[in-house]
Amino acid sequence: MNTFGTIFRLTSFGESHGTGVGGVIDGMPAGIAVDMEFIQHELNRRRPGQSAIVTPRKESDTVEILSGVFEGKTTGTPIGFVVYNQNQHSADYDSLRQVYRPSHADYTYQQKYGWRDHRGGGRSSARETISRCVAGAFAKLALNTLGVDIKAFTSQVGPVTLKGSYQDYNLDDIEKNIVRCPDADTAEKMIELIAEVREEGDTIGGVITCVARHVPPCLGEPVFNKLHADLGSAMLSINAAKGFEYGMGFDGVQYRGSEMNDVFTRRENRITTLTNHSGGIQGGISNGEDIYFRVAFKPIATILRDIRTLDYAGNPINLKAKGRHDPCVLPRAVPIVEAMTAMVLLDHYLLNKTRHL
Amino acid sequence: MNTFGTIFRLTSFGESHGTGVGGVIDGMPAGIAVDMEFIQHELNRRRPGQSAIVTPRKESDTVEILSGVFEGKTTGTPIGFVVYNQNQHSADYDSLRQVYRPSHADYTYQQKYGWRDHRGGGRSSARETISRCVAGAFAKLALNTLGVDIKAFTSQVGPVTLKGSYQDYNLDDIEKNIVRCPDADTAEKMIELIAEVREEGDTIGGVITCVARHVPPCLGEPVFNKLHADLGSAMLSINAAKGFEYGMGFDGVQYRGSEMNDVFTRRENRITTLTNHSGGIQGGISNGEDIYFRVAFKPIATILRDIRTLDYAGNPINLKAKGRHDPCVLPRAVPIVEAMTAMVLLDHYLLNKTRHL
Amino acid sequence: MNTFGTIFRLTSFGESHGTGVGGVIDGMPAGIAVDMEFIQHELNRRRPGQSAIVTPRKESDTVEILSGVFEGKTTGTPIGFVVYNQNQHSADYDSLRQVYRPSHADYTYQQKYGWRDHRGGGRSSARETISRCVAGAFAKLALNTLGVDIKAFTSQVGPVTLKGSYQDYNLDDIEKNIVRCPDADTAEKMIELIAEVREEGDTIGGVITCVARHVPPCLGEPVFNKLHADLGSAMLSINAAKGFEYGMGFDGVQYRGSEMNDVFTRRENRITTLTNHSGGIQGGISNGEDIYFRVAFKPIATILRDIRTLDYAGNPINLKAKGRHDPCVLPRAVPIVEAMTAMVLLDHYLLNKTRHL
Amino acid sequence: MNTFGTIFRLTSFGESHGTGVGGVIDGMPAGIAVDMEFIQHELNRRRPGQSAIVTPRKESDTVEILSGVFEGKTTGTPIGFVVYNQNQHSADYDSLRQVYRPSHADYTYQQKYGWRDHRGGGRSSARETISRCVAGAFAKLALNTLGVDIKAFTSQVGPVTLKGSYQDYNLDDIEKNIVRCPDADTAEKMIELIAEVREEGDTIGGVITCVARHVPPCLGEPVFNKLHADLGSAMLSINAAKGFEYGMGFDGVQYRGSEMNDVFTRRENRITTLTNHSGGIQGGISNGEDIYFRVAFKPIATILRDIRTLDYAGNPINLKAKGRHDPCVLPRAVPIVEAMTAMVLLDHYLLNKTRHL
Repeated sequence: MNTFGTIFRLTSFGESHGTGVGGVIDGMPAGIAVDMEFIQHELNRRRPGQSAIVTPRKESDTVEILSGVFEGKTTGTPIGFVVYNQNQHSADYDSLRQVYRPSHADYTYQQKYGWRDHRGGGRSSARETISRCVAGAFAKLALNTLGVDIKAFTSQVGPVTLKGSYQDYNLDDIEKNIVRCPDADTAEKMIELIAEVREEGDTIGGVITCVARHVPPCLGEPVFNKLHADLGSAMLSINAAKGFEYGMGFDGVQYRGSEMNDVFTRRENRITTLTNHSGGIQGGISNGEDIYFRVAFKPIATILRDIRTLDYAGNPINLKAKGRHDPCVLPRAVPIVEAMTAMVLLDHYLLNKTRHL
Repeated sequence: MNTFGTIFRLTSFGESHGTGVGGVIDGMPAGIAVDMEFIQHELNRRRPGQSAIVTPRKESDTVEILSGVFEGKTTGTPIGFVVYNQNQHSADYDSLRQVYRPSHADYTYQQKYGWRDHRGGGRSSARETISRCVAGAFAKLALNTLGVDIKAFTSQVGPVTLKGSYQDYNLDDIEKNIVRCPDADTAEKMIELIAEVREEGDTIGGVITCVARHVPPCLGEPVFNKLHADLGSAMLSINAAKGFEYGMGFDGVQYRGSEMNDVFTRRENRITTLTNHSGGIQGGISNGEDIYFRVAFKPIATILRDIRTLDYAGNPINLKAKGRHDPCVLPRAVPIVEAMTAMVLLDHYLLNKTRHL
Repeated sequence: MNTFGTIFRLTSFGESHGTGVGGVIDGMPAGIAVDMEFIQHELNRRRPGQSAIVTPRKESDTVEILSGVFEGKTTGTPIGFVVYNQNQHSADYDSLRQVYRPSHADYTYQQKYGWRDHRGGGRSSARETISRCVAGAFAKLALNTLGVDIKAFTSQVGPVTLKGSYQDYNLDDIEKNIVRCPDADTAEKMIELIAEVREEGDTIGGVITCVARHVPPCLGEPVFNKLHADLGSAMLSINAAKGFEYGMGFDGVQYRGSEMNDVFTRRENRITTLTNHSGGIQGGISNGEDIYFRVAFKPIATILRDIRTLDYAGNPINLKAKGRHDPCVLPRAVPIVEAMTAMVLLDHYLLNKTRHL
Repeated sequence: MNTFGTIFRLTSFGESHGTGVGGVIDGMPAGIAVDMEFIQHELNRRRPGQSAIVTPRKESDTVEILSGVFEGKTTGTPIGFVVYNQNQHSADYDSLRQVYRPSHADYTYQQKYGWRDHRGGGRSSARETISRCVAGAFAKLALNTLGVDIKAFTSQVGPVTLKGSYQDYNLDDIEKNIVRCPDADTAEKMIELIAEVREEGDTIGGVITCVARHVPPCLGEPVFNKLHADLGSAMLSINAAKGFEYGMGFDGVQYRGSEMNDVFTRRENRITTLTNHSGGIQGGISNGEDIYFRVAFKPIATILRDIRTLDYAGNPINLKAKGRHDPCVLPRAVPIVEAMTAMVLLDHYLLNKTRHL
């Protein structure tokens, strides 16, 4: 299924080496001002070739809006868009036509569909996330008018970990370095590690943390489509994601209820909580506190080393690695995490409007 | 939204202290033999009062099938079912009518709906999971005929952790102890800890691990509705769940791609992998290896201690704890994790049949 | 698929001779007063045995609400409900176990599912419409607070046709006769015809007209899910429905555009139209004028005559007709048409709220 | 909502005078040969300027496939496509910017969205149906391999009616004349009438009949999503459609059950029926006989006469008609009816595969 969301919905299409990638955004509210520079800027944040620690592929990735926007505002009708592919080196992949690369989707696509577009991973390529960044940018335009603020950042690369909580840092500093970590010192260590890993022709994983502030209370459904379940589904749909936790997450399991409960208090005439171990969501519904969660990304499978694997006939084959790849998915995944978060929050904001006459 | 799934779908209803809980199972394949004893047995595994470490509430929780089964087989039409509530002590909750209990859904329901059924948590009660156990049992009946085997177990309670991998244990031993851990020694420590926590009127969290074996390759969708994204969404929809990871999960982020890639090999004329860091899913699609994942559960919020909190007017109030509650959600959550897993796998099995003419 | 609607959704279950029929209503807005007498009254309007021209079967059809209503108001959580079956003469159907009755669903169910519950038509029985009347009654409770008024009536039975437009009659007179036609003279002729047809052991078809007044402008989606497309889908899902038309419908095809266009005018400071050939819907969206449409119902297939047909093996067989059946579906279908209309209108009312931030 | 279908799904976008129209086809089975000439040919059948009785606008309407097709076959991944708009005379519509044209969607869009793209009707333009023709062509490619054959034709224009049943004509003759009627004499009368109506600056309605042959028995769902309900919804979503009936439809209401029932018989070892009043669908499920239905289209609202109407402020205004419009929608709607039919049948074919393990 290539549609995400209930009211605000992205239907995505496109392969790495096809004509283009894009999608249709349905359910975008009418009358929202469309800042095309902002949208292209969001897309640029995931663009290859943007820094020394990402793939050197040069792709301009310019989004073309095909419908749904008129005289600078949304009309409420679906927004079609496309980013044409360019600068593909499809011939680089000729040797992969009948080969299963380890920990890629080659084998599973072949099992599922009986055949596949082998060029650049086809549909399994992270190039598909272009469509998410575009849809997420539209969602952000709507959320901005509500005051909702979403910030994601790299909080871990391999063993290099940002210490403490997101509250210890200025999240406006995230874009000040190429790894997108709000602490300059940690960022430097992360960048060094990624450079080192790249030298070795290897890759490395990490963790992205995301914080959504000023989310109105009451977003989320009580049983299925809990707000954190939809956020989890959104994050786990991103290439290379292996885990999701919100609030205290896995760490919280070792504490007692008496330590973890968030005690209510009153501040400036507003009901709030003294702590926020819940991560801004209780019973599947936002409570107005900061929503925060973490997403684990594995080291991506494409390494620049010779690899022994199997071809379609099950015969061993030696793959000569080539191509231009990311040593670490994290820096370019930060805007994708934000985009998916924005899509989920706007979707639930709109859905929640239907809960009363 | 109270419907889960695309083809095989559960629509769930019911509050803790209403007339009953139940649901409608749609998309159950026709002609499957219905073993009612098995279904009731699955439901009994989540029943209160089953052991010394769970809530002492006595509820028989007998499922009544209302439709969709005829002469012992499924007809392909929707299966309505209900479990009538009984033995509720609704008066226990009178004092909670206008109170927000910390880390419960009281405040968020009130914000979302404008009012709420305060008795026993209403819709936010884990009693809703009865409907999942019933639907999961039907899904298992179908999956059994395909040879798919699903086993969940308690792998951590507070700091007490089952060492090693699921492959080090005999998963047939899970039901041999009341905490549902396949290692007798670890189980004993977990049980002791839960007993101790209960003595203190407190609660404790933990982790459930789930393994699905003999899943055919090719289940899962390539972009959204990846198999692990749907499993994640399913698990995160369970009460008290705070995190989900599959394969190497969060631990895997510190390794290099060269260490994490699962190398293909041939065994008994079948293509398989030497390692299974991917957790049986590549590119969102099952590859035929074991699927395994972990779910984090927080300590549940209801503690038997006096609690200072706020009432609807924002005034401080002192809650006298009472009621019959679980000190640890884990033992009773094991069958729920299995049930949701079964629902997701059957749904994807059926959906996958549509990918070819 | 046994779920209808996008936001306000009915998931229906139940067979004619199973334990019961019922459903789950999801998306009912919170805080609506629930008038149980009204709901049972709506159900009584479709009840067998209510008059001399419908089936003499005696079924009390008492609805039991299982969840979602607390202290007389909706809570916003799903409303489970069941009507237990009673007074079934299942043995009446023993001879039909391996037989295909003409123009029933016996053959197609057998082809689709491989087997079927043969008793009373199983899932294909119009008894399933009980669940629609209940869900429609809830929808009406919500629509009432918005001032929307829905009235359906029998406008044709066989060749007996109500002359003129719905505006020529007082729609409050519909319930004054047992055929549910707002004109006493025409009603009498219809009743006579039905009695005559029943004498002959035969059945007869007809047309139901439905009018929805005071529907706010802007309900309906512009491309798919046009308001009339969803109304059409709703009506065509009712047993024995063979056609749907709105506004001038099939009759309008012979006119010129210059005759059919509804000219705008201003009345009491409101923009309205001089004529309403469009039936209150333009471009798929309500325009605030009366919505009206017609639904064709075939004569039901069950006739009380000896019938030659085939058994499962394809051998000719002679069916001895028995049982207690309706000679004409129209009088009891009137409340079902209203119920489905209410469900569609409320669903679109809620959906439309999401079109702006 | 701009998505149609459950498994085989079209998500459509585009306005008349925006950059382009197009869509995403999801759920197309993998491995189907893609005949691009056929797809463009299907699109050409709805193209403006194709004959003397349709709008003289010249639009080449060339479809560009953006994804999902590789080396001439479908890959199972979503098929993005676009038809760029060209030759728009947007200035023709300047005078309509703040005007409500009678029986158009101007007023209802304005009410729903608060503003609208006034050029050429924007999203309400029949130009949107381009996306349906493309998706329908893909569906036909899949259905062709199953032997399913779909033919639509003009059976009525104003009062000029094709006599008798579809079985009296050779449906291969449909494309032999520009009005797409299988009888040459009737076609000539229709063409004359349309020419005359055009002379008068007026428009005229009509009826399209569609026949689907060799549809396997068992397509369709028993309660909601009955095959005819989904066909009805599909047809009623086409611009200017006002009614839908299948089998004997509205005419059948005057007959007795004993006349209308389709008696089973055996022919060449196959169970079939002597008559087909049911239109190939019983209980919502195809029975293997021909499926046939009729769709009513109103005269389109755009007439080339001076029109008195209202502007946004409610002031009377005189519209000088201009532009290049169709005097009758029927000839160009024939391929759209076929396309929607193909989409519904393929969707149900795929969905039906999930009804057994």
